[in-house]
Amino acid sequence: MSSVQVFTYRPSASEFAWTFGGAAPVARVAPGTVLEVFTEDCFAGRVRGVDDLVSRVVEFPYVNPQTGPFYIDGAEPGDTLAVHFVSIEPARDWGASTTVPLFGALTSTHTTATLQDPLPEVVWIYQFDKANRLCRFESRFGDYTVDLPMDPMHGTVGVAPANLEARSSLVPDAHGGNMDTPEMRAGVTCYLGVNVPGALFSLGDGHARQGEGETCGVAVECAMNTVVIVDVVKGRPCPWPRLESDTHIMSTGSARPLEDAFRIAQVDLIQWLQADYGLAMLDAYQLVSQGVEAPLANVVDPNYTALAKMRKEWLPRTPAMDDTHARLRAIAAAYR
Amino acid sequence: MSSVQVFTYRPSASEFAWTFGGAAPVARVAPGTVLEVFTEDCFAGRVRGVDDLVSRVVEFPYVNPQTGPFYIDGAEPGDTLAVHFVSIEPARDWGASTTVPLFGALTSTHTTATLQDPLPEVVWIYQFDKANRLCRFESRFGDYTVDLPMDPMHGTVGVAPANLEARSSLVPDAHGGNMDTPEMRAGVTCYLGVNVPGALFSLGDGHARQGEGETCGVAVECAMNTVVIVDVVKGRPCPWPRLESDTHIMSTGSARPLEDAFRIAQVDLIQWLQADYGLAMLDAYQLVSQGVEAPLANVVDPNYTALAKMRKEWLPRTPAMDDTHARLRAIAAAYR
Amino acid sequence: MSSVQVFTYRPSASEFAWTFGGAAPVARVAPGTVLEVFTEDCFAGRVRGVDDLVSRVVEFPYVNPQTGPFYIDGAEPGDTLAVHFVSIEPARDWGASTTVPLFGALTSTHTTATLQDPLPEVVWIYQFDKANRLCRFESRFGDYTVDLPMDPMHGTVGVAPANLEARSSLVPDAHGGNMDTPEMRAGVTCYLGVNVPGALFSLGDGHARQGEGETCGVAVECAMNTVVIVDVVKGRPCPWPRLESDTHIMSTGSARPLEDAFRIAQVDLIQWLQADYGLAMLDAYQLVSQGVEAPLANVVDPNYTALAKMRKEWLPRTPAMDDTHARLRAIAAAYR
Amino acid sequence: MSSVQVFTYRPSASEFAWTFGGAAPVARVAPGTVLEVFTEDCFAGRVRGVDDLVSRVVEFPYVNPQTGPFYIDGAEPGDTLAVHFVSIEPARDWGASTTVPLFGALTSTHTTATLQDPLPEVVWIYQFDKANRLCRFESRFGDYTVDLPMDPMHGTVGVAPANLEARSSLVPDAHGGNMDTPEMRAGVTCYLGVNVPGALFSLGDGHARQGEGETCGVAVECAMNTVVIVDVVKGRPCPWPRLESDTHIMSTGSARPLEDAFRIAQVDLIQWLQADYGLAMLDAYQLVSQGVEAPLANVVDPNYTALAKMRKEWLPRTPAMDDTHARLRAIAAAYR
Repeated sequence: MSSVQVFTYRPSASEFAWTFGGAAPVARVAPGTVLEVFTEDCFAGRVRGVDDLVSRVVEFPYVNPQTGPFYIDGAEPGDTLAVHFVSIEPARDWGASTTVPLFGALTSTHTTATLQDPLPEVVWIYQFDKANRLCRFESRFGDYTVDLPMDPMHGTVGVAPANLEARSSLVPDAHGGNMDTPEMRAGVTCYLGVNVPGALFSLGDGHARQGEGETCGVAVECAMNTVVIVDVVKGRPCPWPRLESDTHIMSTGSARPLEDAFRIAQVDLIQWLQADYGLAMLDAYQLVSQGVEAPLANVVDPNYTALAKMRKEWLPRTPAMDDTHARLRAIAAAYR
Repeated sequence: MSSVQVFTYRPSASEFAWTFGGAAPVARVAPGTVLEVFTEDCFAGRVRGVDDLVSRVVEFPYVNPQTGPFYIDGAEPGDTLAVHFVSIEPARDWGASTTVPLFGALTSTHTTATLQDPLPEVVWIYQFDKANRLCRFESRFGDYTVDLPMDPMHGTVGVAPANLEARSSLVPDAHGGNMDTPEMRAGVTCYLGVNVPGALFSLGDGHARQGEGETCGVAVECAMNTVVIVDVVKGRPCPWPRLESDTHIMSTGSARPLEDAFRIAQVDLIQWLQADYGLAMLDAYQLVSQGVEAPLANVVDPNYTALAKMRKEWLPRTPAMDDTHARLRAIAAAYR
Repeated sequence: MSSVQVFTYRPSASEFAWTFGGAAPVARVAPGTVLEVFTEDCFAGRVRGVDDLVSRVVEFPYVNPQTGPFYIDGAEPGDTLAVHFVSIEPARDWGASTTVPLFGALTSTHTTATLQDPLPEVVWIYQFDKANRLCRFESRFGDYTVDLPMDPMHGTVGVAPANLEARSSLVPDAHGGNMDTPEMRAGVTCYLGVNVPGALFSLGDGHARQGEGETCGVAVECAMNTVVIVDVVKGRPCPWPRLESDTHIMSTGSARPLEDAFRIAQVDLIQWLQADYGLAMLDAYQLVSQGVEAPLANVVDPNYTALAKMRKEWLPRTPAMDDTHARLRAIAAAYR
Repeated sequence: MSSVQVFTYRPSASEFAWTFGGAAPVARVAPGTVLEVFTEDCFAGRVRGVDDLVSRVVEFPYVNPQTGPFYIDGAEPGDTLAVHFVSIEPARDWGASTTVPLFGALTSTHTTATLQDPLPEVVWIYQFDKANRLCRFESRFGDYTVDLPMDPMHGTVGVAPANLEARSSLVPDAHGGNMDTPEMRAGVTCYLGVNVPGALFSLGDGHARQGEGETCGVAVECAMNTVVIVDVVKGRPCPWPRLESDTHIMSTGSARPLEDAFRIAQVDLIQWLQADYGLAMLDAYQLVSQGVEAPLANVVDPNYTALAKMRKEWLPRTPAMDDTHARLRAIAAAYR
């Protein structure tokens, strides 16, 4: 284990970032470093019981705190940052979900504006059974209770955006950010195109679990103790965030309307099959049409996020993205 | 097996229907009847080799032929038709897929109109290995070949629509139709709200397999020998098509933009949880937000189709839709 | 005037059509015929006072009655039907507008489905001052009153659709139908591609006036006495409904999302400039980009409708659509 | 005229801003100040002839330069900045328009992603006849020429956004920015909600004229000499940019899909009628439904922009937004 560099960081309440871009780095780390970090929940830890309504306890825009940004040595525009998730573990024994006025997929919102009244604001608290990896749903308007499997993930993972922008941590786009996909779980490597020197990587918004689409806009939100390994793929751009697991490669797209998020992810996957697997464009289009899974991430954020997910065993035997996933898997094994 | 009524129907080329609504019934059958039917592929069987371009061999609007419609005795507006899929087996040892000019998710179309040239028209023929349940992708512009698992399904399943309409068999909407979901496989029960006396059920558009979203607009299309059991749930409306398997309940929505298809399916699932499982609306909203899967069906047809899919084991132990799925499972077992 | 053929038709309550396609013709007329017709309002005349809530008095699907269809002699698929509006005059001295539950642009709907309560159902009755061509808005929840200019138009004008379909009279699409554009006023010629022998033209849904977009989904609805001249442009297809006034040519598009309606109309206008005015595609794209008006028609119906409208004086001096507008203008002058 | 404060500012090439938010103020001015400014065209002046293709001469992200930002004394979050356009005059005697690869309404783009080839890149140069206020379209692929009326406007007008963000000057949103509406012409007052101390107002992107929707994504772009008067409406928030002319009030909405831009603008107009004109919500909904114009601004930028425009003469006789438009009209008269 002597060869693995570890950096541990637990931000204080005043040290979070609220944007991608526009925040000064909290540390500088070398490629290959293992980062052990704490992330606060999306409510900045202020929703702790059923009476803690978001509209009352959260101070906008101080919502969805990010741990970071980290300046990754040697990352330059045109490179790709690789972030391998070694582990994601809830830092408390409970999580919270809520309805938020004019936010969510099944209500009018500030952009899908209507003249109707908002839905009522309600909080649900989930107790965790960490030994059995369960989180307990308890109905607020009846007595139904059910244990759901925990499947911890990070809703928000990203780098500083292009075009001199600074984006709220609530927004997903080409720089990553608040994509809210359940696929961002331990064992996965996330690829993010670098837009500024050092990439300026940060993450947050842990979910003990989440449905596809994040229907009400809020998952089982919780603080996390998370371990990631960061690395740089030199000279290799990545137009939209990609993910790789042991079994699948995945492209993401974030846009509105939702079909555009779908289109972006599918086109990116096809171009990935062309670049790394040597398929012709139309053959890749055809193979993807029959083989792809297209799990929705969120249908609630300022951009919606869709994934295009392909089984590696159906592809030519070529390592993707310069075999970075395997390399980071090896570092993860050395770290444990 | 004496108690199971079986009706076998193999239409000739002139006996297909091309719309839902506006076509006279081909037969009258009683609830509980087992239908053994042949369905032709969406090309009306005219694409048989790589030179059979759709624009050349298909005679519009005679595309996507439907087997039926069947008049189901006793089905009245306000009832629900239940269709249980006992088996779906490819009727030939090959299937076909194609690009079609100005059709598909990754091209401009007649509605997402642009000034660009269409993509080239190409045909792929898949050979089936029925013993191992595989279908073979062969690239047209290289030498890559891969066997994909067969997962036979019907793209088009529906009844006559409401509002005195007749809809092309290419359209999915509240009456079902061309939803193109891979979930419409053997073992599943499909629920369809009845709009006219006799329901006028028909089906077609078999796929040996299909990716989620049906990206290029065309799956591995093939003729099918299919067995379904039809039944009527009296006095029980069903606003959008629903599916039920042994493990999941599923709502569908068909609309544009894609987020509206998502919204319809999610709202319908929540209202289903209220009606059949006794959850309060906001509790159902919360539970769905954390537990739902949202597989896309198609992002290419005149309406896009999304599903909202919930694991039964996470729900109160109540039979859904008057326990119809279990009842039809029993008839299927008696039939075999 | 001896040369002008006039056909007068006033349907009884049982003689209206409720669909485009699927209804038998009420009369057969020759090209060049002047049709003098009565059209009932979209409520089938059932909303007559502020207590006549739509949900109470209207019997679905018997809404938006159409006068027709008329079989136009010699109209064949591949031709274009031209309909010149000579006059559109309110048949009563009042009109009605309403909110309708889950219908309109600023409420959730059956497709933009949410969990919120619908808006309240309210009726507004407008008194007409025909001499001064005014209609009076009277607030229901205050004492504000204002006279708005009348600008009579038909919301629904169309022919039988392609693809063997029958569409509800509430739907706008390539066959015309419920486009709800204020541009469909006296003095304008509407071009509709013919899909079936005889074209099967009908019209209805008179509005004393309407805002762009028809925000609440309901205009100042009223019965109309309307005079149109029908004609056939042989051998000339028309992919989407077009309009021509003395000063402008206009293309329409009907689709969701709204940008697709915009795209269709703009592409059709550009292709019109190519075909009839001899501009190269990219030059037409550029000229339209700087010169077009893009008035919205409806953002409430099953498809949204947008127009692309170009001033004739900015175009080469070529008659459009075989100079049909001028020809029908001459017949209208002879008729008066 | 002694009482009118005038501030003149002509930025050098290195002094432009490329974002709203994230740029330091270039000057501090008092409310009521007349600003005489130069704005460069959206190409940063680099497209000067038909061979100057954007992909070759423009250095991304240095596109759409903004003049400013100006720190307005006393402007605080919760106030509204008022910007009255006294005059907008082309600074050169020519303008330029272009197609840009994967940008525009009638092509696939980076978000409406397809597999098709982009449209060709072409430049059109417009010569101005300033005496007659004309700009001349000359076809590139034929010999058609036509003079179009000049109607100078600013495509981009805005303040620093909320939520700690910095947005590219290509983006329109609640902070204003790249709305690209032809209504932003001389004689109009633009209202912008203040998000940060000093508001940080800037403007740019002059157009000699533009069609509604800005179809190809690029108007007749030109440098401008522009005079505006800035003012602060204290204690009065403005959720979305609003405009006021002598005859109309207008709300804007910027979002995707386009119907959401429409919804935002219509809801904002209705809430404006409630707040300043005393109408009940449902009465305002009804009056807007019959009286509104809904001109499209752009259907090409990262958000699309729609307007909701209402004739003042149809509204109760109440000054809107604290009568700011009249007050700034008076200062403009004194200045001339």
